[in-house]
Amino acid sequence: MNKLITALAAGLLSAGVASAQQALFGAQPLVSPQINADGTVTFRYTNPKAIKVEVTGDFLPTRKVTFNNFSMDAPGMAEMTQNKKGVWEYTTSEAVKPEMYTYTFVVNGTSTIDPSNMWVNRDVASLTSVLLVPGSSNDTPNLYAIHNVPHGSVSKVWYHSDEEGINRRLSVYTPAGYFDKANASKRYPVVYILHGIGGDEDAWLTQGRAAQILDNLIASGKAEPMIAVFTNGNIAMEAAPLENSQNYTIPTMALPKTMDGTFEPTFVPEVVKFIDTHFRTIAKKQDRAICGLSMGGFHSLYIAINNPDSFNYVGMFSAAIGTGSENKATSDVYKNLYQKVDAFFAKKPALWYIGIGKADFLYAANKDFRAKLDAAGHPYHYTETEGGHIWRNWRIYLSEYLPMLFK
Amino acid sequence: MNKLITALAAGLLSAGVASAQQALFGAQPLVSPQINADGTVTFRYTNPKAIKVEVTGDFLPTRKVTFNNFSMDAPGMAEMTQNKKGVWEYTTSEAVKPEMYTYTFVVNGTSTIDPSNMWVNRDVASLTSVLLVPGSSNDTPNLYAIHNVPHGSVSKVWYHSDEEGINRRLSVYTPAGYFDKANASKRYPVVYILHGIGGDEDAWLTQGRAAQILDNLIASGKAEPMIAVFTNGNIAMEAAPLENSQNYTIPTMALPKTMDGTFEPTFVPEVVKFIDTHFRTIAKKQDRAICGLSMGGFHSLYIAINNPDSFNYVGMFSAAIGTGSENKATSDVYKNLYQKVDAFFAKKPALWYIGIGKADFLYAANKDFRAKLDAAGHPYHYTETEGGHIWRNWRIYLSEYLPMLFK
Repeated sequence: MNKLITALAAGLLSAGVASAQQALFGAQPLVSPQINADGTVTFRYTNPKAIKVEVTGDFLPTRKVTFNNFSMDAPGMAEMTQNKKGVWEYTTSEAVKPEMYTYTFVVNGTSTIDPSNMWVNRDVASLTSVLLVPGSSNDTPNLYAIHNVPHGSVSKVWYHSDEEGINRRLSVYTPAGYFDKANASKRYPVVYILHGIGGDEDAWLTQGRAAQILDNLIASGKAEPMIAVFTNGNIAMEAAPLENSQNYTIPTMALPKTMDGTFEPTFVPEVVKFIDTHFRTIAKKQDRAICGLSMGGFHSLYIAINNPDSFNYVGMFSAAIGTGSENKATSDVYKNLYQKVDAFFAKKPALWYIGIGKADFLYAANKDFRAKLDAAGHPYHYTETEGGHIWRNWRIYLSEYLPMLFK
Repeated sequence: MNKLITALAAGLLSAGVASAQQALFGAQPLVSPQINADGTVTFRYTNPKAIKVEVTGDFLPTRKVTFNNFSMDAPGMAEMTQNKKGVWEYTTSEAVKPEMYTYTFVVNGTSTIDPSNMWVNRDVASLTSVLLVPGSSNDTPNLYAIHNVPHGSVSKVWYHSDEEGINRRLSVYTPAGYFDKANASKRYPVVYILHGIGGDEDAWLTQGRAAQILDNLIASGKAEPMIAVFTNGNIAMEAAPLENSQNYTIPTMALPKTMDGTFEPTFVPEVVKFIDTHFRTIAKKQDRAICGLSMGGFHSLYIAINNPDSFNYVGMFSAAIGTGSENKATSDVYKNLYQKVDAFFAKKPALWYIGIGKADFLYAANKDFRAKLDAAGHPYHYTETEGGHIWRNWRIYLSEYLPMLFK
């Protein structure tokens, strides 16, 4: 046996990878997920003595579930069956539409990621396996595939929040060429892209594929070269879990100061100021945009209207408006909403974008909001898609929003 | 029920997280791993109908395993037992020494990460769960904990390799203050930190905790502020798996051009040149260091001695020398090793560092190498630790090496 392979084996075994043997010593590793020639997808899982194994994910038709009298859509679930070798398998009955999905296996009732699939996403404190069905150049995944184009840089950068008295992390996308000497004095417009509740400064870059979307839109000339900034909207958090000085603290839904009007007032004086003094931005309203999904859409709305001279473009993707948070907060941030909206539109912003899915539980609240804009005669762009409160919609809204900026 | 929570539930369910209900609706989520007051650690796993559940990881005493007549150390394995509620549990018999460990569960013979632990590491194409036992300020984990100190930035940056004709990614750590206007003309020394076989430009930043080690050493004044660059030593790869234009290709051990003399000649003309033209480096031998673990130690050796005017500091951590790769390669890079070593030392480098564990299977090869340096009268620093070819040693070597640089 080659000494190098021995070396590797030792290294891997030392690292605690019990399955390394299989990968290294010739046994065929299990392939899962496998996209078949006919477009169906096969999932596989080895656990010969399991009683019941299911797969659940958003590639399956949704099913209705009920909690506390609320009915909502949940991802479908399918039973896997054991083949002759004892491997649990499930093949979809139809070709799976090209898209980026997430799924887990449910083994005797316990959820687990697919051990054969190294592609794992973290959302809040939950891990899911990723299924990407790439499709052709006409399909959605083409928007966020990694193509052979110039790539921007993604930096994790820390700023100090005087308001909170802590160091906080944000992610910054700088377009291809930003660090080239030839561009040393070139300045760029900036879009701030905000995550939903439970997410953090990583969410748009992992599930949202924002860096790939930006790379591809900029390379094709559809979007202007721009800086994109991904904040952590949980103002009491320093950074994504496990990357902050709490080290081992796992986040829960009950994060303090999440939608109580604390984050929004710090945005322009702390975040925008930090970016404008540490990156080569064009520090003007004309060259500044903001957008966000769910809680991030809510944040974008209130940050924009409370700072009518700061943002020329606003995007609300499945915005979490009308949830009651506005009424509970004691902050002034949420007061006089439509008065502030009128004042904002009086300054003639270049774009107000609203995107939502027909099945989104926030559909009605967004419809009410649009009715107010209509009644006041404020112009906005509106995109309505199928589906609900899901990443596949948010990637589409972002892909549509970015080319509208800074033209 | 609060509408916001409903919103969240819908979002999570749509994302395919079957276990979200539990986390959201009051049931106590399973805690695993749990560090107990007496320093023991408890692991938990729910799978009532499993027949046998084990935990394996490097926190347990190693066991000997044999492959093809090679005997080597593998992480220990312990059986978990089912408690009255059907939850599988294992509590270590003794307090676990403060350290960062990796582990997996083996359920009916199938390896899986711990579903209750969101901290997952990827090594090659394998995922493991992480156990961090933080300890006190005297313990090793203190070196790489995230403390409340100024943090550097970590950027993922792409350069073009003319030699390979592809875009390739590297990671760049810039110290706290790098992007401050006050430092706009400040230049920094650079250390290149290379990964082992199977790793990539992420490995030192995840399992290696290099950014935290740098932050802490710089903040305490033990190390000089410096730029650190983490290359991808697999020259035919664009970037870490799932982040390159192959999108779905999972790496195997059989990567082409890994230790055949192709990477080393491109290092100074492509990587160093890119860094020196895109970051504010001090572009001089006196302010340039290189080091690496295993394959990266091998690369560091040959890159340094083939470029005797480029690096003033060299670090070999468990370097993969004497594995036979040198003899098989047709490249000139590996020829006349000791002649080149003599020529390198004739130029009086500031530091040659060798670190290795007593149980490392590369111990003998490194001992032979040291004997050659001794015979030639070449000075070097030597650190010998317990244990083998493992990350906990490499984090220690890096923590020792960095303070020796640029003084």
